[in-house]
Amino acid sequence: MPEPFTPTARTTVRRDDRAAYDHDVVRAVFDEALICHVGFVVDGQPYVMPTIHCRIDDVLYLHGSPATRMMRLMKAGTPVCVTATLVDGLVLARSWFHHSMNYRSAVALGVPREVTDPEEKQAAFRALMDQVAPGRAELTRAPDDMETRKTLVAALDLDEVSAKVRDAGVIDDEEDLTLPHWAGVLPLRVTAGPPETDPLLNAATPVPEHVSGWRRP
Amino acid sequence: MPEPFTPTARTTVRRDDRAAYDHDVVRAVFDEALICHVGFVVDGQPYVMPTIHCRIDDVLYLHGSPATRMMRLMKAGTPVCVTATLVDGLVLARSWFHHSMNYRSAVALGVPREVTDPEEKQAAFRALMDQVAPGRAELTRAPDDMETRKTLVAALDLDEVSAKVRDAGVIDDEEDLTLPHWAGVLPLRVTAGPPETDPLLNAATPVPEHVSGWRRP
Repeated sequence: MPEPFTPTARTTVRRDDRAAYDHDVVRAVFDEALICHVGFVVDGQPYVMPTIHCRIDDVLYLHGSPATRMMRLMKAGTPVCVTATLVDGLVLARSWFHHSMNYRSAVALGVPREVTDPEEKQAAFRALMDQVAPGRAELTRAPDDMETRKTLVAALDLDEVSAKVRDAGVIDDEEDLTLPHWAGVLPLRVTAGPPETDPLLNAATPVPEHVSGWRRP
Repeated sequence: MPEPFTPTARTTVRRDDRAAYDHDVVRAVFDEALICHVGFVVDGQPYVMPTIHCRIDDVLYLHGSPATRMMRLMKAGTPVCVTATLVDGLVLARSWFHHSMNYRSAVALGVPREVTDPEEKQAAFRALMDQVAPGRAELTRAPDDMETRKTLVAALDLDEVSAKVRDAGVIDDEEDLTLPHWAGVLPLRVTAGPPETDPLLNAATPVPEHVSGWRRP
């Protein structure tokens, strides 16, 4: 693993007991998150849009129709902020004030570039598939030329990056410890329900393991 | 329920088959989401930060330490974008190209104001508790004056608002329907694991129903 990311004035986490700049922490957040939120600015107004992403080494990839505003802006080289957040648990204290969440978040700042190299674009498509359902890329039809042209892929180097992690129990005030209220952490995770097979599918087609056994890392 | 929100040039969803401006759709997204992502701008650079929120009627409330940059900017009246997103399922098509997600997202634009009225501030605190674990506010210690002063609450009127919803099955190209690949939707939701009781708690304290039976609406 390379050296930790170097915090800049823009990525120094103010609350430093939760700050993390290690590659493995930042990478793990982006890898586990199913979606990210992309911030961009138009006429001084910030916009925040959810989208899916993937990571290869220290590059994040985003994609979409070239017709969308967000993709057009990214192609034009607008500054963005890409944030991924995992909610790991509710921290339920005896006092309202000390309620919190256990979470991991990662924030990447920078100016994206359009991916024009065909091999890099194809690798990004594959990684996007594996981000959502690892193993699925092998078992489905890869994009043809037309589909590839109809998709814009933007790359953001993970360079100006920070993460925040809270992973601890309840921290109540000493004088509240004798209150009769239950306190603790309620762990949360994203789980899958039973797969809903496409009605147009041949009913004999088995549900593959990457679907029936789907879980986040 | 009031009339639908009126889309402005800034909140008109380009992909209109997914657009929603009804109050009940927008409200349901903000109410079910455990966290939102807040976008703001500093020196032309967008920042996107996760935080918790709650809604009372058509007002969103955000809170935090007055020392944080985000709260200071909101107090000063900076334009923000508050986005909440629920991932409801993976749409697993036969082709990579037609993979998608079922999701609901809501986006609110505007300039927040600081909440200074003590009653409104207390109501926001209560709603924040109920957002995370409905029923918990009654069973825990409300903030004292010092804690109330140490927390800044910002209010954003839900006025310039839009939502996007995808809630459908797989849409594959006709010529891919005979491919042997499984296709369908994998529903996702946030679920709780077993509560982890605070080691400092009297072990005889029962786990309350709002914790043991916690689930998102």
